[in-house]
Amino acid sequence: MKAWDDFALRMKQLGDLGHMGSLMGWDQQVMMPPKGVEARASAMGTLAAIRHERVVDPVLGDLIETLTEAELDDERKMMVKRVKRNRDISVKLPARLVEELAETTGKAHPVWQKARDTDDFSIFEPHLDNIFKLLAERAEHLGYENEVYDAHLDLFEMGATTADVEPVFKRVADEIHPLLDKVFKTDTADWNLPETPNHLDDLLTYSRDLLARFGYDLDAGRLDLAAHPFCSGLDSGDVRVTTRLNAKNPKECILATVHEMGHGFYEQGIPDKWKGTSIGKYVSLGVHESQSRLWENHVARSRSFWEGEAPRASKAIAPWAGLGADDYYRAANRVDPESYIRVEADELTYPLHVILRFELEIAISRGELKAGDLPSAWNEAMQKHLGITPPGDGKGVLQDVHWAAGLFGYFPTYLLGSIYSAALFAKATQDLGGETAVDASLAAGRFEGLLGWLRDKVHSQGALHDPSDLMAAATGLAAGSQIDTAPYIDYLKKKFGDLYGI
Amino acid sequence: MKAWDDFALRMKQLGDLGHMGSLMGWDQQVMMPPKGVEARASAMGTLAAIRHERVVDPVLGDLIETLTEAELDDERKMMVKRVKRNRDISVKLPARLVEELAETTGKAHPVWQKARDTDDFSIFEPHLDNIFKLLAERAEHLGYENEVYDAHLDLFEMGATTADVEPVFKRVADEIHPLLDKVFKTDTADWNLPETPNHLDDLLTYSRDLLARFGYDLDAGRLDLAAHPFCSGLDSGDVRVTTRLNAKNPKECILATVHEMGHGFYEQGIPDKWKGTSIGKYVSLGVHESQSRLWENHVARSRSFWEGEAPRASKAIAPWAGLGADDYYRAANRVDPESYIRVEADELTYPLHVILRFELEIAISRGELKAGDLPSAWNEAMQKHLGITPPGDGKGVLQDVHWAAGLFGYFPTYLLGSIYSAALFAKATQDLGGETAVDASLAAGRFEGLLGWLRDKVHSQGALHDPSDLMAAATGLAAGSQIDTAPYIDYLKKKFGDLYGI
Repeated sequence: MKAWDDFALRMKQLGDLGHMGSLMGWDQQVMMPPKGVEARASAMGTLAAIRHERVVDPVLGDLIETLTEAELDDERKMMVKRVKRNRDISVKLPARLVEELAETTGKAHPVWQKARDTDDFSIFEPHLDNIFKLLAERAEHLGYENEVYDAHLDLFEMGATTADVEPVFKRVADEIHPLLDKVFKTDTADWNLPETPNHLDDLLTYSRDLLARFGYDLDAGRLDLAAHPFCSGLDSGDVRVTTRLNAKNPKECILATVHEMGHGFYEQGIPDKWKGTSIGKYVSLGVHESQSRLWENHVARSRSFWEGEAPRASKAIAPWAGLGADDYYRAANRVDPESYIRVEADELTYPLHVILRFELEIAISRGELKAGDLPSAWNEAMQKHLGITPPGDGKGVLQDVHWAAGLFGYFPTYLLGSIYSAALFAKATQDLGGETAVDASLAAGRFEGLLGWLRDKVHSQGALHDPSDLMAAATGLAAGSQIDTAPYIDYLKKKFGDLYGI
Repeated sequence: MKAWDDFALRMKQLGDLGHMGSLMGWDQQVMMPPKGVEARASAMGTLAAIRHERVVDPVLGDLIETLTEAELDDERKMMVKRVKRNRDISVKLPARLVEELAETTGKAHPVWQKARDTDDFSIFEPHLDNIFKLLAERAEHLGYENEVYDAHLDLFEMGATTADVEPVFKRVADEIHPLLDKVFKTDTADWNLPETPNHLDDLLTYSRDLLARFGYDLDAGRLDLAAHPFCSGLDSGDVRVTTRLNAKNPKECILATVHEMGHGFYEQGIPDKWKGTSIGKYVSLGVHESQSRLWENHVARSRSFWEGEAPRASKAIAPWAGLGADDYYRAANRVDPESYIRVEADELTYPLHVILRFELEIAISRGELKAGDLPSAWNEAMQKHLGITPPGDGKGVLQDVHWAAGLFGYFPTYLLGSIYSAALFAKATQDLGGETAVDASLAAGRFEGLLGWLRDKVHSQGALHDPSDLMAAATGLAAGSQIDTAPYIDYLKKKFGDLYGI
């Protein structure tokens, strides 16, 4: 069928443009010398323009229309649907608005950095104000049914609505608050791992070995260093993980490696048969985050895993000689009473950091909060959720790059990922013979059962199903079921209850 | 002027597409994991298709026509001329031919590798035959005046003709042959540097330090390892040099680093004011090679340089402790009596390797030689030029990737580069106070005078002048003058005469 062939070629080319963008992004953060910034920005701009041109091309619109009415199998139907969604978003947004947003965020970035580093919100405020105005305009172009925030959220977690997410997050906060009150009463100052000032190379070597032992295919990927760790999937055969080294907080390197490896497993597991198609990729940021959180929290922060791993870590990193499983387990799960920074947060305070941002974003999207109100609103929310006040706006409202970059509606996907990961891990545990069997595997350093289960239920599905349907099917619920928070809350209660004796 | 603005944007976007292609190429050879091959090939194909689409776009043709007749300053005139040249080439070539060539060379590559590794020309012959047929067809589309080979040559060295190059190369061969006869009578088996099996890391560190001491800006570039060293200029602020480590032939790492650094200096020296334009880049492969050869041969293979450098090298690389300037100088200039491989050749046999290929290519382009005639023609030419016969076709006619990749007319630029480099170095020496002064600078590790001269005469000129005009102006001749071989021949005679006492 000619229409299909034309469409398939255009779809493949859009995928290839994505490949170029991913490579430029990875290179920029990992390899590019400092003076390469300007040329890279120019090339990224041209790539975005070319991509936009090709996405909104009316010929593609006609092909989509023809194919939407044609007899296609389920996979092809979904390929058309996924391209159509992206095209609809691009068509709805006026070129002028897209350019203005790119320009405004481009100018805002260095100002945000300076504001953060000098604790001076006032210089950033006018920029943030402009960004919020443009984002509000964008939401009107995208459209929504009841709640303006839905237009933002849907960009990052396809199909999610405020009405779905808000009660879920509220339930999570209500369960964590009383847990935290008790946890903060325990003195855990000595739970941290010894620092490793002269063993950073060993830490990186150990992390690379760990990746390989988890079964990560290093012929189809890499591990490098980056200031802010991330994972970039150029193709299932080329998935690049990054981590960072911090002598004062060495566990961060291990946890970041495992977190990004979880993302990487997802990308490596996308089936070859869908290469070059719109379903040959991850389905949503929330589902992506479920994969990273699962390996980070349910494996690398578990007691069982450290039973097997402790001797290896203690041998590889000289300052850790003699440490046992409990030492690593406690260090990995120490709750910091002064948890100001989201990206450094432990597993128990992390959700509250996300919920705080989610609540502020809803208020901003409704026009109830302006940019200038944010520093005080932020600090009030920190008191409410964590009982602390940041020492300055740099460690408060200015800590994240997201708003400066125009990423609004993105934060909730982090917590959705944690909730999903607990539901997936609970079902996997059941399917793999129960808790005792899974614990024994983790302690024995055998991960292929768990990885195989995730390959089967999640990775191999690509973007063939909508996120909520994928999650429902994987966890054994009916399609379209609500997000199930019970496994997540049970998990947190049990783990931190045991650890802190509460 | 609207036409100019439209043209300038399209020119900038073509430059940005070049940036993406360079990055993908660099990454493929330096960073990409093995399983990334397929996706990268697809992305490269899409990039080529998009580039072609934009180059042949009739709107660009109309803009070029309008601007060719408009009042423009010299720089803008040349920007239009350079884009026109590239567009004319693309327009002349039927899409079918370009695709067929890409497909044929794509399939030929693994066969060539196997043929080379197993000394079996017969499996490669049908592929090479197809490639030569397509290349002949391409030449007819491109057009030429007297000699079909000119159509090939002009693609790589704009404006060069067989009639110009043939007598020059003949003269070089005639001068080198008698020199070689004498050189081969000297026993130089003990001129090699000690091997460095356990010091490869030290060699790389030393090479990186050397780059920095030469004045290479590592904030605007990188040094990495690659199987076949190359330099990739993504932008004057991002110029990536590669080298390779060979414990059995450690000097190769140093010479490759300096060679690629010479290319890199050229790219780093392109003026910022021409960023995003068609003159903000190197002008030809021959001129590019003149820069690499100048630093490799006239500096890193000079006696003066090693006077200053010997103590540093002997300190950095343990197996070289105690070696003096003469040891390094001799090692760098040892002529190998069994010089089968072009890329490993010394300075005296190298030109003959190029001339041999040039002569064969002319015969092939004239239809006097077919693919099947090449193994015997190659071996005859090796006897004629070097007095040796390769032990097999893998170290003979199959050694280079060029023909398998459809690069035909490319080889001569290597020798043009050597000839240009000698002319440039002679003029620079004169302008910088004469031989004694320049030797003293090199011995003192002070390179800014020489680099400044090259910046001024070559790098800062970008592609503003045609290659022959650029070379004439830089060496003080009238525009359009013939290539001057005297400095090159004088240099070889003096250097190898002194070294070998002839």
